[in-house]
Formats: sequence, C-alpha cells, structure tokens
Amino acid sequence: MSKNVLILPGDGIGPEIVTEARRVLALVNAQDNLGLELSEALVGGAAIDADGVPLPDATLAAAKAADAILLGAVGGPKWDTNPDFQIRPEKGLLGIRSNLGLFGNLRPAILYPQLAHASSLKPEIVSGLDILIVRELTGGIYFGQPRGIREKEGGIREGYNTYVYDENEIRRIGRVAFEAAMARDKRLCSVDKANVLEVTVLWREIMEELAKEYPEVELSHMYVDNAAMQLVRAPKQFDVMVTGNMFGDILSDAAAMLTGSIGMLPSASLDVDGKGMYEPCHGSAPDIAGQGLANPLATILSAAMMLRYSLGAGDSADRIEKAVSSVLDQNFRTADIWSEGMQKVSTSEMGDAVVAAL
Amino acid sequence: MSKNVLILPGDGIGPEIVTEARRVLALVNAQDNLGLELSEALVGGAAIDADGVPLPDATLAAAKAADAILLGAVGGPKWDTNPDFQIRPEKGLLGIRSNLGLFGNLRPAILYPQLAHASSLKPEIVSGLDILIVRELTGGIYFGQPRGIREKEGGIREGYNTYVYDENEIRRIGRVAFEAAMARDKRLCSVDKANVLEVTVLWREIMEELAKEYPEVELSHMYVDNAAMQLVRAPKQFDVMVTGNMFGDILSDAAAMLTGSIGMLPSASLDVDGKGMYEPCHGSAPDIAGQGLANPLATILSAAMMLRYSLGAGDSADRIEKAVSSVLDQNFRTADIWSEGMQKVSTSEMGDAVVAAL
Ligand SMILES: CC(C)[C@H](C(=O)O)[C@@H](O)C(=O)O
Ligand SMILES: CC(C)[C@H](C(=O)O)[C@@H](O)C(=O)O
Repeated sequence: MSKNVLILPGDGIGPEIVTEARRVLALVNAQDNLGLELSEALVGGAAIDADGVPLPDATLAAAKAADAILLGAVGGPKWDTNPDFQIRPEKGLLGIRSNLGLFGNLRPAILYPQLAHASSLKPEIVSGLDILIVRELTGGIYFGQPRGIREKEGGIREGYNTYVYDENEIRRIGRVAFEAAMARDKRLCSVDKANVLEVTVLWREIMEELAKEYPEVELSHMYVDNAAMQLVRAPKQFDVMVTGNMFGDILSDAAAMLTGSIGMLPSASLDVDGKGMYEPCHGSAPDIAGQGLANPLATILSAAMMLRYSLGAGDSADRIEKAVSSVLDQNFRTADIWSEGMQKVSTSEMGDAVVAAL
Repeated sequence: MSKNVLILPGDGIGPEIVTEARRVLALVNAQDNLGLELSEALVGGAAIDADGVPLPDATLAAAKAADAILLGAVGGPKWDTNPDFQIRPEKGLLGIRSNLGLFGNLRPAILYPQLAHASSLKPEIVSGLDILIVRELTGGIYFGQPRGIREKEGGIREGYNTYVYDENEIRRIGRVAFEAAMARDKRLCSVDKANVLEVTVLWREIMEELAKEYPEVELSHMYVDNAAMQLVRAPKQFDVMVTGNMFGDILSDAAAMLTGSIGMLPSASLDVDGKGMYEPCHGSAPDIAGQGLANPLATILSAAMMLRYSLGAGDSADRIEKAVSSVLDQNFRTADIWSEGMQKVSTSEMGDAVVAAL
C-alpha cells in the first residue's frame, strides 16, 4: 500500500533544504521499499506569488489527503509589508496547522556531541542537553477571536488579540506532554504566567488535574519569565516542558539556540491520530537564501521523524539518523556549525554526504 | 526642601535586601545632606497577611504622595493558590504600576567585568555586554479587558485575556526608547510578532512613524522568537530594545540572566514626568528568603538609580555605584555570584561592605 507524502518547500532557504531532504527520502524509499509517493505543493510567499494566496485550495486539499507532510519554512521581507494581513506567508503555515488540527508540536532541543563547541553557552552548562518542548499549536493567542485593528473614540487606533484556551484544548496538549514525559525522564515542567493571566490559571489547574492520571510523572510549574531565565542559566534541569502557542514559540527557539545546533533540530506537529507535519525548528532565513549556505540536516532529520511517527518506518528513520551522525563524524559542516579544522560544505554537498552515507 | 521616599519591602527576600539598601540610602542622605524622608509601607503578600489586600489604600496613597519609591520584590507560593485572583501579591505591584502610570520600564542588562565568569555563556559572547530593554509596563495583555474564566456551551470552561495597545500607548513608550537610544549607541530594535498578531502590526507601524522624528536612530524590527534566539546567540548585537509588557517580561529576564549577574541589576519604572519606582530585576526568591543568602546589590543600585533619576542627586548615585564596584574589587561576593577564591558574604555583610566603602 502506497503512502502519500506532501512536500512543501515554502520560502527563503526552504526550497534548498527540502531538495536535499527529498533526495534522502527518495533514496530510503527505494532502498527500503517503503512505497512512498512524493508530491510537492506551494505554500507561503511562494504561493502568494503564484496564486495570490498563502494557502491555495489545492495545497490544503493535498495536505488533507496526504499521509504526512514535510515543510521547509515560510516567510520573508518581500511579503512582510503586505497591507492585507491575510495575504502573508505565515497565514499559509497557520492555515495548515489549524485546518489539519495539528495541535501537538514537539520541539526537541538536543546538543549533538560533535557540535558541543557551537553553543554560545559554556560546555558544562549544555553538554548532554536533551529537552523536549511540547507546544500547543492550534489555539491560544495565535488563533483567538476577536482580533484586529479598530478605531476608538477620537479616531485613535488600537490593535487587539485574544489569548484564549478552553479546558479541552489544555487537556489535549497536556496529555501529549505527560505521555512524552512517561517515555523519557518522567519530569514535566508546565510554563505559564498564572500570577498575571487568567487563561494560564486555568492552564495550571488542568495540568494539576491531569497529574493525578500520571502519578509517576513529577509535574512542576514555572512562570514564563523565570523559564526563559532558567533555560539560559541551567537548561539541563529540564526534561519535558509544556506550554501554550505563544510562550512555546519563544521558549522553543531560545532552547534550540542554546544547543548552537538550531540548523540540526527537527520538529513534529501532530493531530489527534498522530498524522503530522514535519519541519525544521529554524526559519526561512531569507538573508542567506539561494547561496548554498543553509544547513539541510534539520529538514533531513525532520524527514526521519516523519518516517518514524507518521509512516511506520522506524528502521528507515534510524538509518537516516545514523547517516547524519556519520557525516558529522566525517567532519562535514555547513557554515552555521562550522569551526576550525572542520570541512566546510554547501547545502547540496551536505545532502551528497548524507546520501553517500546511506 | 525635603523629599519623601517610600520603601516597599514586599515578600520573600524583599525585606532583607531592602534593609541593606535603606541603610545605604540613610547614610548618603546624612553624608550628602539630601533631606530625604524615608518611610515604609506594606505591599504584596505582606499586605495580604496584614490587611487582606495586596495594595492597601494607605500604601497607594503613600505611593502617590512620595517623590520616589523603592521596592524589594513581591510574591511567593504561600499566596499562589488563593482562589480569589484579586488577592494575589502581584496585584499589589501591578496596582502601583497602573495607578501611578509607571508605563516606562528601563531594564539594563550589563555584565560587570568583575563577574564575567558568573555568566553561563562563553566569555567572548558576553564580555562588555550592555543592553537596555525598554518595556511597556501599564498596558498590553497584563491589563487588557475583557479577561477571566467563563463557561461556554456544555459547561466547558475557558480562560481568556486581551492583548491590546492603542497608538498613544505605543507612541509614548516608543519615545522613551528612541530617547534612550539617542543617549546611547543610537540603535533601537523593536520586538514584536507582527507576522501573527495584529496588535503588534500597529506597534511596528507606530515605531516606523516615530523613526522619522529620530533620523539619527537606526531602527530595526525583530520577531520575538528570533529575539529570544539572538539574545542567546549574540547578545552584543543589541543596544536598546523596546517591546510590550509580556514580551518585555520574558526577554528582560533572559537578558538579565545572560550576564550571570541578575543579583546586580536594578530597574526603573517611570511615569510621564519621570517620577518612578525602582526595584531589582530579580524576583522575591522565596526559596532562599530569611537565610542571609540574597544579594542586596541590585536593590542598592536601584536606590542609586532613584537618586539620579527621581531625586536630582546624581553625585550621591555616583558614590553608591563606586562603592558597589569597590566591594566587588575587594572580592566580596554573595552566594549567587560567588566563585573560587572570592570571599563569600551574607546579605547583611554585603550591606556592611557597601556602607564601609561609603
Ligand atoms: C512563521 C511563524 C508563524 C511560526 C510561529 O510563530 O509559529 C514560526 O515562528 C514557528 O515557530 O513555527
Ligand atoms: C511579579 C510579576 C507580576 C512581574 C511582572 O510580570 O511584571 C515581574 O515578573 C516583573 O517582571 O516585574
């Protein structure tokens, strides 16, 4: 039985990194007889340029029909000033997340031993770092209504957004996080701002309620400002962290950057049935697009994650991850992770190296 | 002409650190003939315990009447579970900020050369670090209406808060930031999430508008997730950053922690006339309260900032700052900044050392 994989290159470095991941995917598909059918569609700025909207109907239909999705990245200054807020690249990404119900975002922050020096933190602070951030992805202030820019008395404009979660949304992401903690070191830190925001008072309450179902998991709570500090001060104190959409956006990027290997980190966004979209943790980096400077490994590792979690091909995923580790052992480095004595390679050369290792 | 200084010890380590700052303030008051009248009032958990509310009328009246306010810190687990959200320590702090219109929060993140080793970041990443974060303090999601927890159809509860800014609020804090940039390296980075949140689309627009009034200032924009990453990756790229209440809470704590000297960092919260409340950047640290472990220097430096900005006593402020620098040169360290070879001192011994240096 064949399975459909939809590939969404997106913008900036998206097409370059996805090209390499696609090569890797096509290779293991052939080697391991996975029966994957790969197709591509437009999303983000690329879709705006071609079709006038960031999420064309055809792309949404293909995404719904696919067994799994691999995304590059979206966004760039070219579309940032579009006065119509609906016609921005990010709306394409948010539209897929929301239309497909991909509420559970898993963002690992792992330090690759080969890249320990690349962190801006002292080695003893980050060596062995292995955190999983579970971010709610289809609710919170990203999607809350009402929202917009309106005129008040006197013609004064005001912008407003709504940060909202109901108990079911919180429970659903909470379960994902508790389950993830069960499969790891059984420590879960829920991040909120319950000393100021009512929505996160409810969040904390529901997490406490869930904790009763998972007596083995040690649940703690931390205010988001403190969490940002603790990530910088002593990140290894964390095992799994769970938080809402906005805080998760901020903290997962900070956590990924701690490792110095953000160009290496994959992520998964899953629906209730485990169907998912996979993408690198990093963004579209328009400043280096098209120059062969981008690191394709996060996208290649996202493809591995996809094989494991959505396509039932864990062995192939293992093989890709081993291949990535071996190219690092062979000292191949793209610019973002390069250091003295290592061999600097381009995006496609890094792809070549992974293909060769496979 | 005498000037009234209201001292609010607050909770946790608040009373201990404020005691040392008060001694220092009393000393320079006498030495330099400043004519300051020092008084104290209750706020936060301490006020809840004594009067049942976090901001008693008498405290608010005293705060309004004062020429300047020095605060320790508020909050602690003892009051965290109070089911009445209005009866939480933080409401006392937020009530003063909002009733006194203290919208302009200045949070420096400076690396003290004597403490370079205390940072969790590599020395070359943080040496010489000197960032100023300008945080809007009386608006945004902290104060937006509507807010609360309500029942939807089917008895499902949902929590909600409103992130709102009008153009006047944005312009007002923007001006503070542009002025601060003019007095520094003339580079201002405005942090928003304008690719997702309409309220920050307006924010960005108003910052652009203000930039025309300050042609010498180089204005840039950064998404908050990227800002969190860049603070970890290369914090020295920043001069002044300006952002809203919630993002400012998160980023200023992360930035302060980069220095490893969060126990050293003062902050100011100013109204339109420059009247202000001064407090350390760190929190109430209930886990170490009452043990003589807290570092009083951030509070002592907050007192210096108060003398300079609200009490017209810049020379006395200089003297305090020099005294603090000299106790560091004498190798006195509280536990938070202690390292091999340094002399570990308690909260009050650190106060003694500053008093002696004066
Ligand atoms: C591109 C943007 C809308 C997106 C987000 O904020 O969720 C990105 O930053 C991410 O974290 O995936
Ligand atoms: C105590 C709390 C309400 C406060 C805030 O979030 O503003 C604190 O974290 C701060 O940054 O001053």
